[in-house]
Amino acid sequence: MVKIASGSLGDSFSVGSLKAYLSEFIATLLFVFAGVGSAIAYSKLTADAALDPPGLVAVAVAHAFALFVGVSVAANISGGHLNPAVTFGLVIGGNISILSGLLYWIAQCLGSIVACLLLKFVTSAESIPTHGVAAGMNAVEGVVMEIVITFALVYTVYATAADPKKGSIGTIAPIAIGFIVGANILAAGPFSGGSMNPARSFGPSCC
Amino acid sequence: MVKIASGSLGDSFSVGSLKAYLSEFIATLLFVFAGVGSAIAYSKLTADAALDPPGLVAVAVAHAFALFVGVSVAANISGGHLNPAVTFGLVIGGNISILSGLLYWIAQCLGSIVACLLLKFVTSAESIPTHGVAAGMNAVEGVVMEIVITFALVYTVYATAADPKKGSIGTIAPIAIGFIVGANILAAGPFSGGSMNPARSFGPSCC
Amino acid sequence: MVKIASGSLGDSFSVGSLKAYLSEFIATLLFVFAGVGSAIAYSKLTADAALDPPGLVAVAVAHAFALFVGVSVAANISGGHLNPAVTFGLVIGGNISILSGLLYWIAQCLGSIVACLLLKFVTSAESIPTHGVAAGMNAVEGVVMEIVITFALVYTVYATAADPKKGSIGTIAPIAIGFIVGANILAAGPFSGGSMNPARSFGPSCC
Amino acid sequence: MVKIASGSLGDSFSVGSLKAYLSEFIATLLFVFAGVGSAIAYSKLTADAALDPPGLVAVAVAHAFALFVGVSVAANISGGHLNPAVTFGLVIGGNISILSGLLYWIAQCLGSIVACLLLKFVTSAESIPTHGVAAGMNAVEGVVMEIVITFALVYTVYATAADPKKGSIGTIAPIAIGFIVGANILAAGPFSGGSMNPARSFGPSCC
Repeated sequence: MVKIASGSLGDSFSVGSLKAYLSEFIATLLFVFAGVGSAIAYSKLTADAALDPPGLVAVAVAHAFALFVGVSVAANISGGHLNPAVTFGLVIGGNISILSGLLYWIAQCLGSIVACLLLKFVTSAESIPTHGVAAGMNAVEGVVMEIVITFALVYTVYATAADPKKGSIGTIAPIAIGFIVGANILAAGPFSGGSMNPARSFGPSCC
Repeated sequence: MVKIASGSLGDSFSVGSLKAYLSEFIATLLFVFAGVGSAIAYSKLTADAALDPPGLVAVAVAHAFALFVGVSVAANISGGHLNPAVTFGLVIGGNISILSGLLYWIAQCLGSIVACLLLKFVTSAESIPTHGVAAGMNAVEGVVMEIVITFALVYTVYATAADPKKGSIGTIAPIAIGFIVGANILAAGPFSGGSMNPARSFGPSCC
Repeated sequence: MVKIASGSLGDSFSVGSLKAYLSEFIATLLFVFAGVGSAIAYSKLTADAALDPPGLVAVAVAHAFALFVGVSVAANISGGHLNPAVTFGLVIGGNISILSGLLYWIAQCLGSIVACLLLKFVTSAESIPTHGVAAGMNAVEGVVMEIVITFALVYTVYATAADPKKGSIGTIAPIAIGFIVGANILAAGPFSGGSMNPARSFGPSCC
Repeated sequence: MVKIASGSLGDSFSVGSLKAYLSEFIATLLFVFAGVGSAIAYSKLTADAALDPPGLVAVAVAHAFALFVGVSVAANISGGHLNPAVTFGLVIGGNISILSGLLYWIAQCLGSIVACLLLKFVTSAESIPTHGVAAGMNAVEGVVMEIVITFALVYTVYATAADPKKGSIGTIAPIAIGFIVGANILAAGPFSGGSMNPARSFGPSCC
């Protein structure tokens, strides 16, 4: 049932598509600014202490709220992916073409990078947290953790926002997408970082 | 007014029903992974310290958010029970047949077991928390506590999701179902574990 | 514009009205059980320590989530008041008659009392927290605090749930009603207890 | 595409407009009372300790919940701005006239001032927290931080509440507007105070 479409230049560079890339750029920027910013704020308040449960709650709630809002503001223009894994999942399902998907990725990466540059500036160059597996875990465990929670995110997008028969579930879809990320950070944060984003799992948390 | 239906093999094994069991399996898996995972994450962050209020907030919010999402992603396919007590309540009300209910239970249990096996693997075999009555409580108190909060959950499902005259309340039903569990964990967690699930109350928190 | 209606015995004891009182009773019971239960849970986890910010968050979130759910489950049957102050406000506006309002009060008080009796039993007779003004505050300050936050609650009910021209705001009205109580507990909890309920402000937190 | 309208006296002083100013006044009062009140409550509970992560969560959640409710209760009457920066943004877009915008500002400022006077009274003259850049940050960094997060707020208002093609996103718009403020406080609180409001950034947190 894979219905990948390669896409045409005309479609991928129409005015509507350019608006979609801009929408992804802005929404990802705002999401990453608040989400990564909350991790930096924790470091600021605690003088770089190790993460504790109140800090995990702060970071998870910031990501949940900000992703919900990011998806909401972009939903009507670009569909509100904000994450290369979500875009990849929707390319596989034929919801958008490969070419448009690549341009979504670029827009998301640029938004994420600009968010981190802004954070570096406004926080007087606090270091940007990087994600990685916790001490005592091996890489395979970290990868499986990220596979499970990234699947949860993409499955949620499919079942609430992308389902043509979603009905009234569509109204609360952006909240569900934001909150599954919040819940998964509460579970996975201390183990793999809880990225749900291949670009963030293997490097700094910005793209 | 009890309208229990025994169910026919044809109905319970139709393509739509098989999709419903798969939907329950996946949604329960994702809910238990985030919910139980958040309890393991607390142990990881605190080196197995006793639960404190920030930890209770983290676990309650993870369950609230994850159950809301789990109900949302399954709502249009299986109704989004994710819990044997909810399925039992809906069998009593005649919403689904006994046979389908039994298959829902199996799907929920399998989802829960797979979630816990995955958690054991990705967390380097941290032990899965078990639910039980707190020190100083007797079993009857624990059972009454669980009866009250499980009633709260099933009543919420009936009044918001299963009510044919639900109107616009139906739109926010999955949020209400998730959040009553969050609220009840904040009240019952330190006393009975806050399972709201007979299968979890009398054993490990996975099925 | 005050449109108080005294009400007739026939209306106030119709089957629909009796269902409404039962609905208020159950919803208030479940709300108070989770809300007051969360305060007892804090005492249990901290061996009766003074309230600290994580405890305030736990109690506020439990009340916010549980009131939202309580209003949701009762909305289509009784309107979901769950609070004598809300019922009083709606009697003043003529939304329900004086007689029905009195019966709502009785249902709410009974629900609250049964919730507290259950809590006393299941928590091995932990004492039920009482609300009162904090040390260093006088009674007038406490009363003004409660007036402001109770006004906030009743105003929210009027503007989101009871407004005939509410439109799509009506869909999220139960969430707004629950969350204004959560926000006000975060502000008023350490000062006046954050009751928003005359029956609770001047005595134990149950009715 | 700037469509600023200067506005006529007739429009800006119609009964509908006067209701809108009153609605802004009350909603802003209730929002600021709960939001600023939560910061005072933190000081009360901790004997004026420096902000820590649980306190940041308490303040962010109080603002998120209270702004969501404030926007909800005013949405159908005034549009639910509650913030001079939002009103300014909507004047620029031609959604309301300059004259009405100025009267919105006055209503918002009065609501905020009354909220703070009430807080001073009910908390026995606890000092009202002031916002400012953190130690080690310079003013430019603080201003850029506030520009980014205020842009996030105004962009969210435009994309969810003010967009004529918002569809079902409009139903959850007040939640999105409240929660972007909560997320941004979790990120910006320890750096610039997280005002998202020019009137609060340069002085006491009340207007």
